[in-house]
Amino acid sequence: MKKVTSKDNQYIKQAASLKNKKYRIREQMFLLEGKKMVAEALQACKPLIRVLVDEAHREEYRPLAERYRDPEWLEVDSRVFGGIAAADTPQGIVAVAPIPHNDFSDLFKQSAGLILLDQISDPGNLGTIIRTAWALGIDGILLSQGCTDPFSPKAVRASMGGVLNVPIYDAVSLSAIEQLKSGGYRVIGTDLDARASIFTGDYKGANIIVIGSESRGVSPDIQACCDSLIKIPINPAVDSLNAAVACAIIMMEVWKQRNNAFLS
Amino acid sequence: MKKVTSKDNQYIKQAASLKNKKYRIREQMFLLEGKKMVAEALQACKPLIRVLVDEAHREEYRPLAERYRDPEWLEVDSRVFGGIAAADTPQGIVAVAPIPHNDFSDLFKQSAGLILLDQISDPGNLGTIIRTAWALGIDGILLSQGCTDPFSPKAVRASMGGVLNVPIYDAVSLSAIEQLKSGGYRVIGTDLDARASIFTGDYKGANIIVIGSESRGVSPDIQACCDSLIKIPINPAVDSLNAAVACAIIMMEVWKQRNNAFLS
Repeated sequence: MKKVTSKDNQYIKQAASLKNKKYRIREQMFLLEGKKMVAEALQACKPLIRVLVDEAHREEYRPLAERYRDPEWLEVDSRVFGGIAAADTPQGIVAVAPIPHNDFSDLFKQSAGLILLDQISDPGNLGTIIRTAWALGIDGILLSQGCTDPFSPKAVRASMGGVLNVPIYDAVSLSAIEQLKSGGYRVIGTDLDARASIFTGDYKGANIIVIGSESRGVSPDIQACCDSLIKIPINPAVDSLNAAVACAIIMMEVWKQRNNAFLS
Repeated sequence: MKKVTSKDNQYIKQAASLKNKKYRIREQMFLLEGKKMVAEALQACKPLIRVLVDEAHREEYRPLAERYRDPEWLEVDSRVFGGIAAADTPQGIVAVAPIPHNDFSDLFKQSAGLILLDQISDPGNLGTIIRTAWALGIDGILLSQGCTDPFSPKAVRASMGGVLNVPIYDAVSLSAIEQLKSGGYRVIGTDLDARASIFTGDYKGANIIVIGSESRGVSPDIQACCDSLIKIPINPAVDSLNAAVACAIIMMEVWKQRNNAFLS
């Protein structure tokens, strides 16, 4: 491992800048932090650009560095490393990864089960939804304009690496949704006042289930575009569920219908 | 409303102290913050001791204060109020409420559907689980020794008032679980390596489903006490689900089996 001791090193400056959305967009890179996420990304041959290791953890990560030689490995002075790590309990390892790009037109060749998140603003909720989508075989996540950035350190951490494993389509416009509809997708909105329960729907074909923000629900223009509306049946005394919880309950129903084999 | 301008006022000092667990235990009181939660507690006739209103929000909350005269209402100097509010976006209202006490022996008279949380350490996760349990008709939540405090400001906020609506039994010992078992409860553990899926279980009778911490799962002594083990069937490439998500998926299955009426 090459050793870096200056915070003015170009790779250190670049990595530190990626905590900021502006630079993530410009560089098309993001940070993957922590032992488990970085090790899993290496094992799954995800394309990492660079791995930065706190010098205090050098021996811990040496076997990993020797096994996976593809990304560049840098040993970083502990004080300098502190300026890059964003986790509450840093584990001395951060990778710089390219933001994955997924071809929207591929969706027209599939009969995918998709989730559209409409203005989800909490990065922890968004990351948790991505993690659950990965666990429950969702084919892709569409994000409306106005969603929080799925590649922020907090969302990436909550996704537990899901951002590298579930195709994410950012800033999806209403006209893109209309195109998917024309291509055969059914758009199913969730609404607390819908009559039909999620358990009466059929999610085996090409479909997009829309989850709205906790405070405002699905926005009117997207709701107008829905083929049908469904609700999660809950205790009528309770207003709503947390967005990540609501999404998980729906995704489990989709997973049950689309992946019978896993449910024995 | 009586006006309070000094941070040395006894009620102000007491309210501020309740951000700290030691004082919540000593006083057997906790803080309920925000317009929605306080208004709902008043409407549901929950026993509130005192409501503190930021003077800047006096007019907004006057109708509520006139309608619900039972708790004492205090108008608080804005700077003093700032020392009590814990939310990121304070709404100018905080209530002091007694910690609800639930009689453990009542559980022996019911055929309840319970959740036992084993060392859940994240207050946001715990609050979200309580909120979901309220929405999905869970009869009570048992907390193992070592769980985070359900009456901390962060857990209360994530519960959206659920802490006042779901019976919570704190610091439940292994011998208390054994007593419930002797009283007819089946104890069902969740384990990633279990053979049986949650969807093959029967949750209609008296039962306790155990959810472990995300990092360590169900602890060995509680696992040894389980009558059976179940798992949530997920993509085998994925390690686990967020604890609140896992809990929600299980509680929805319990709700479906125990409350058919709501699912049409």
